[in-house]
Amino acid sequence: MAQVHYHCDACNHRSEHLQRPGYCAHCGGPLTFGYDQAAMTPQPALPGIWRYAARLPIADPAAAVSLGEGNTPLLAARLDLGVRLFWKDETRNPTGSAKDRALAVAISKGRELGKRRVIIASTGSAGLSAAAYAARAGLAAAVLMPHGTPRDRAAVMHLFGADVMIISGSFEVIADVVERARKQYGWYEVTTARERNPFQAEGPKTIAYELVEQLAGVPDAVVVPTGGGGTLSGIWRGFQELHAAGAIPTLPRMYAVQNVHFNALERALRLGLTETHEIAALGIDSSRPTATPNLKHAVPPDWRSALRALRESEGDVVTVTDAEAIAGQAELAHHEGLFAEVSCAVVAPAIRRLLERGLVQPSERVVGMLSGSGLRDIAALAEHHPAAIRTLTPQESLTWLGHP
Amino acid sequence: MAQVHYHCDACNHRSEHLQRPGYCAHCGGPLTFGYDQAAMTPQPALPGIWRYAARLPIADPAAAVSLGEGNTPLLAARLDLGVRLFWKDETRNPTGSAKDRALAVAISKGRELGKRRVIIASTGSAGLSAAAYAARAGLAAAVLMPHGTPRDRAAVMHLFGADVMIISGSFEVIADVVERARKQYGWYEVTTARERNPFQAEGPKTIAYELVEQLAGVPDAVVVPTGGGGTLSGIWRGFQELHAAGAIPTLPRMYAVQNVHFNALERALRLGLTETHEIAALGIDSSRPTATPNLKHAVPPDWRSALRALRESEGDVVTVTDAEAIAGQAELAHHEGLFAEVSCAVVAPAIRRLLERGLVQPSERVVGMLSGSGLRDIAALAEHHPAAIRTLTPQESLTWLGHP
Repeated sequence: MAQVHYHCDACNHRSEHLQRPGYCAHCGGPLTFGYDQAAMTPQPALPGIWRYAARLPIADPAAAVSLGEGNTPLLAARLDLGVRLFWKDETRNPTGSAKDRALAVAISKGRELGKRRVIIASTGSAGLSAAAYAARAGLAAAVLMPHGTPRDRAAVMHLFGADVMIISGSFEVIADVVERARKQYGWYEVTTARERNPFQAEGPKTIAYELVEQLAGVPDAVVVPTGGGGTLSGIWRGFQELHAAGAIPTLPRMYAVQNVHFNALERALRLGLTETHEIAALGIDSSRPTATPNLKHAVPPDWRSALRALRESEGDVVTVTDAEAIAGQAELAHHEGLFAEVSCAVVAPAIRRLLERGLVQPSERVVGMLSGSGLRDIAALAEHHPAAIRTLTPQESLTWLGHP
Repeated sequence: MAQVHYHCDACNHRSEHLQRPGYCAHCGGPLTFGYDQAAMTPQPALPGIWRYAARLPIADPAAAVSLGEGNTPLLAARLDLGVRLFWKDETRNPTGSAKDRALAVAISKGRELGKRRVIIASTGSAGLSAAAYAARAGLAAAVLMPHGTPRDRAAVMHLFGADVMIISGSFEVIADVVERARKQYGWYEVTTARERNPFQAEGPKTIAYELVEQLAGVPDAVVVPTGGGGTLSGIWRGFQELHAAGAIPTLPRMYAVQNVHFNALERALRLGLTETHEIAALGIDSSRPTATPNLKHAVPPDWRSALRALRESEGDVVTVTDAEAIAGQAELAHHEGLFAEVSCAVVAPAIRRLLERGLVQPSERVVGMLSGSGLRDIAALAEHHPAAIRTLTPQESLTWLGHP
């Protein structure tokens, strides 16, 4: 870890040392990290995200807790959505989602800090990732999730050895329990919100680093399915770091994709909201059923840094319906051979919308983030698509194969 | 494709040109491929398995049908099974299994040959892969599977646009339908058996190439969950090619892991069987239910080359029970943070058995193949493990977190 320093995002206090892990010693606000600008060159000796270890807040990357996260493919799209399109296939991470980058950093830091017990509030993806990395690290883990989380996913967390609890109450209520467990009982919290764990927030920026290498340049636009907002703002921070170091000449525009019924960022951007209570006052009902559960936040925990990414990059928010998301999943599978979960398949209709609105141009290079694998939600397929599996005799099948 | 030539595995006829795709012009036997020995150096310009394109039977690797297959992590084991153990994490391939290497080659070749319609007989993994790559290639696909294939997996194939058929009859009956569809109606067969499609059989050898690079040397033993036998014999061919070219000084021993009730290779090795009818006469009942469906072959299609790999490498077969496989899955999840399907979790108990029998030594470097991801069979978890997900109030959860 080369020359990292810490400064508070709330009071701007700067320190070379970490007083209270992850929080400002003066005001308790969330810390951000600054790195030696000389260390912007990847180190090929380490795999995946650890190639960028000089820009991650881990003391000894060789001792990091790793399942081989990162280094995911960037695939040229076959689908003609009207732009020069690439898919960043984050489904290829160890537990099938981009959250693995965040949790690899968070759990590595936890072990470095001597923590023994990890806790997380999650709607599913981050919890799965936390359970896997805690197992890899030999740490105990507790995953707290709201009602409605698919039981299949919870069963996998349990197999990893995590204590899995479904809690009656909203995500905000659960986050409060987790914070009290941290304060009162010393659990190490890895909830993927920057104010809850600043280390994990450094993980997603490695996506930006990889994109610049894979494209041998800077994309014009990056389109990100957005739930809590941490992945979006993390990617933006990665581009900003590269730009500040003079490693890239331009910056991309960042576009968030929200579900039309969970559009806190869109409304906050339009209305110029600046306080959490204003977002909460929008009255978004997080108990509303949706086909995109990972986008289901009334108050996205990282809304502040996500909005900042959208404004600074001159990006925007587009919204997508459940039906469009479900159709997007089928389109990605049928035309690209990619099985994305419905929550991230929103990028396909979103890119069409961006083009219609003139926000992206046909000549531009656009990256669509496929944040999570559909394999973790196969059961949802049966809900969205009528069964079309035929049972045939050998002769019936041969007859059909002769005249398909 | 540098200097590939073809020779028949049955009559040894050699040709520089491919007369009838994949089969010997003289006797119809299965073709194998020979490559320019000078071309043993990886080409880093292409990703994944295509780094080794000079040793794959594809004319233009830049035009290959790719989902970013290969280049999977090799993870040092945390579990102490008594040897220097590494996991080759093939769950990280595009559809979650090592079959993606085979199908990427088969479908790329199919498109190169101008094929429009792809057909496969599969017990699940290869069918999923075929459906994804056919979608990526823009080809029609038909997947024929026996009764008992998980419907969840079939639903994903359908989403990829494949025609999915469950056929009444054994795998052998289904393979016969597929062969007739190829001969009578011109379907391009990609069943992962070397006699059915010799191109796909070249895919698994890239695992050997990667292992040698990742270990910076040759492992002492490679332990492979074995169903049809193609992955085992493909890996062995990769090591043989490297050895013949002088790129590696030694060869590993290959160990096949079979289910104790589907142990055709073990019995054939002990009894010295040399003909398919002798294997069939063992009377293994492929309709018997098992927790390891991917290992469920009465007559492993690639039994001949698999046995040859075991004999030539001075390896062996070990067998594992359903209960051991299920326990192995939990052990890999809990101690390694890896979610392997039950069919490949057999490697963990198998390695213990190899050590007990003195077939591997504590000082040796052993690679365990994790061939397929458990995410494709989450539903099976509920069968094997009682639900342990608790539903709690916020106060109940906090009380527990204080005294875990």
